[in-house]
Amino acid sequence: MPNNFPPDSVGVVSPQTARFVEPLALDCGRSLAEYEIVYETYGALNAAASNAVLICHALSGDHHVAGYHRDGDLSKPGWWDNCIGPGKPIDTAEFFVVCCNNLGGCKGSTGPTAINPDTRKPYGPDFPIVTVKDWVRSQARLADHLGIRRWAAIIGGSLGGMQAMQWAITFPDRVRHSLVIAAAPRLSAQNIAFNEVARQAILSDPDFHHGHYYEFGVVPRRGLMIARMLGHITYLSDEGMRAKFGRELREGTPNFHFNFDTEFQVESYLRHQGRAFVDRFDANTYLLITKTLDYFDPAADFDQDLAAALHRAQAGFLVVSFTSDWRFAPARSREIVRDLVRAGREVSYVEVPSEYGHDAFLMPIPLYHDALRSYLVRVAREVNGHAA
Amino acid sequence: MPNNFPPDSVGVVSPQTARFVEPLALDCGRSLAEYEIVYETYGALNAAASNAVLICHALSGDHHVAGYHRDGDLSKPGWWDNCIGPGKPIDTAEFFVVCCNNLGGCKGSTGPTAINPDTRKPYGPDFPIVTVKDWVRSQARLADHLGIRRWAAIIGGSLGGMQAMQWAITFPDRVRHSLVIAAAPRLSAQNIAFNEVARQAILSDPDFHHGHYYEFGVVPRRGLMIARMLGHITYLSDEGMRAKFGRELREGTPNFHFNFDTEFQVESYLRHQGRAFVDRFDANTYLLITKTLDYFDPAADFDQDLAAALHRAQAGFLVVSFTSDWRFAPARSREIVRDLVRAGREVSYVEVPSEYGHDAFLMPIPLYHDALRSYLVRVAREVNGHAA
Repeated sequence: MPNNFPPDSVGVVSPQTARFVEPLALDCGRSLAEYEIVYETYGALNAAASNAVLICHALSGDHHVAGYHRDGDLSKPGWWDNCIGPGKPIDTAEFFVVCCNNLGGCKGSTGPTAINPDTRKPYGPDFPIVTVKDWVRSQARLADHLGIRRWAAIIGGSLGGMQAMQWAITFPDRVRHSLVIAAAPRLSAQNIAFNEVARQAILSDPDFHHGHYYEFGVVPRRGLMIARMLGHITYLSDEGMRAKFGRELREGTPNFHFNFDTEFQVESYLRHQGRAFVDRFDANTYLLITKTLDYFDPAADFDQDLAAALHRAQAGFLVVSFTSDWRFAPARSREIVRDLVRAGREVSYVEVPSEYGHDAFLMPIPLYHDALRSYLVRVAREVNGHAA
Repeated sequence: MPNNFPPDSVGVVSPQTARFVEPLALDCGRSLAEYEIVYETYGALNAAASNAVLICHALSGDHHVAGYHRDGDLSKPGWWDNCIGPGKPIDTAEFFVVCCNNLGGCKGSTGPTAINPDTRKPYGPDFPIVTVKDWVRSQARLADHLGIRRWAAIIGGSLGGMQAMQWAITFPDRVRHSLVIAAAPRLSAQNIAFNEVARQAILSDPDFHHGHYYEFGVVPRRGLMIARMLGHITYLSDEGMRAKFGRELREGTPNFHFNFDTEFQVESYLRHQGRAFVDRFDANTYLLITKTLDYFDPAADFDQDLAAALHRAQAGFLVVSFTSDWRFAPARSREIVRDLVRAGREVSYVEVPSEYGHDAFLMPIPLYHDALRSYLVRVAREVNGHAA
């Protein structure tokens, strides 16, 4: 079979699984006796084990962040393939890149769809709601497993950026650089409100069965679809939707139907996104991660003073926001920057003009990728001891 | 029973019903053979019948716009009572104020919950989707019924503002002044997207029964509740929600539950709003009116040139927007103003600083009410021939 990957691709990659048998105490008060973490790696760890970069995923992401799972099949690249590979901003010729599916996920790491050893049935709604701090602690164990004492950088967008920030606070001596992209210091009431509507859509779906739907051979399709459609609106911007869809009617629709069929292109797009998501994601995981988002609040342990929390950090920071992002708007990133400055941390901040809304953090926007690249070239020099 | 209404209240009011037996041709191509319109009036029509003001309601409004339905019961004032009454901005000492429940509504005018004379059962989903133009034509018949040839002013917020604008285009010689508040020249892709998610929530509720739920003795509570919760988010602003709820937990919740119960105040507020709405509104009407919104596009009949549409108008215009309104943002009102200017119409524009979001149009914000008052004092002088 021909290897037809572009030269800047990491090529074919295979997920690996790490099993942990030491119990993990969770913020909710419960603990996981044992669990598995699925992850991928690209590039090579250097002799000093100093060039490792951790990528943290957001709500619907997973460990497959770059490359392809099958030779000759370019249809399903990792979710941030445009940014990771030899010569790309996150340069696998310089860095050993690691990305794992988070605990509570549904792509192979232990979560609601996994078998609960106590009951021999899927955890379902009995899987504990994990926090960003729980994730960071579980990722630290993965780092130990991989022989990585200190990350050259931890990078994430959205909820991933929250993990990058929490890492620098929880394990100050294990993070050289934290790249916090399209994130917020905590969710606003509006953010929580959108999550709550999404949750209600799932919880009230008759096929949800209090989360035990696996046993009924169904999934709460309608609820999860509505949750995802709603999510999508918050990932795009008003101006981006105007440019992409406007008020155009879908193909084959010359006039209004005067019924509730799909008429406008934007409706058709959302329904398609909703339907596709239901086939690849678990509703219990979706519920769980919306709570992980709601609960994230690193300042809460420091009398609501984020600067005091960040004062613990030793990392250098790059904070990136996008002008049309209204889910986690630039003002939210500037709050982080302000408190990093107050905490005396080194911080660079880039506000990238874009009409892609929150989704911009996944897009190959030149200024954005240039910012990542130039920051990471300096990190590579620091850890690899030569100019990149 | 004591009459304890404030002196600037219109007091106890009673809805009236007008029956129309001449068929009304609708934009969808169908027609209504007969229909009823429920309305209220306050103040007195002058001898010249020149002092009538029409108030147009928005998505969930109705004809009960001011005063009280029962003596001694101040609990349920009309939805815009703070603005209408003797001495209030819409001064019933000067104007004969009329407000009707629109066709397709669920508060007494003919709509999905009414009996279809052809089947002797409720119309349900067979009630035609009506447009803003259909509403304007039906309101014109109500004007004829009331002996009002020309309105002194037509006033509305949100979807109500769209009716005020359409009136000035459809019946140029029947509108002296059009007050277009917190409106937009047409819905954006994002606006339509939110409506579509709300519709999907209702349509996919198993209790919806393709709209024939009346016959099954159920209502699609869950879907309508989710639709309303989502709507509410778009009515408030991010900053307003932050000020009102922040990340506060609800009373009796000292810590996170780590489950999906209501924890944050904003969740509790939204669920309450959703539940209360289900008890007072019909799901078929909600679906219908979201389509009325989506379809509104007065420029469509004029080669997408709103200025050409507004060129027909003879009315003077007051356009009002609110800074934190992101459902129909000030930029959308400025589009209307720009095209009114291009059309050579007389227009005043006020952008009111507010953190109440879209809901601001219902609030007694001093600058807002002052703007309405001073505009309408001039209108009163015009039609009543003396200084107000």
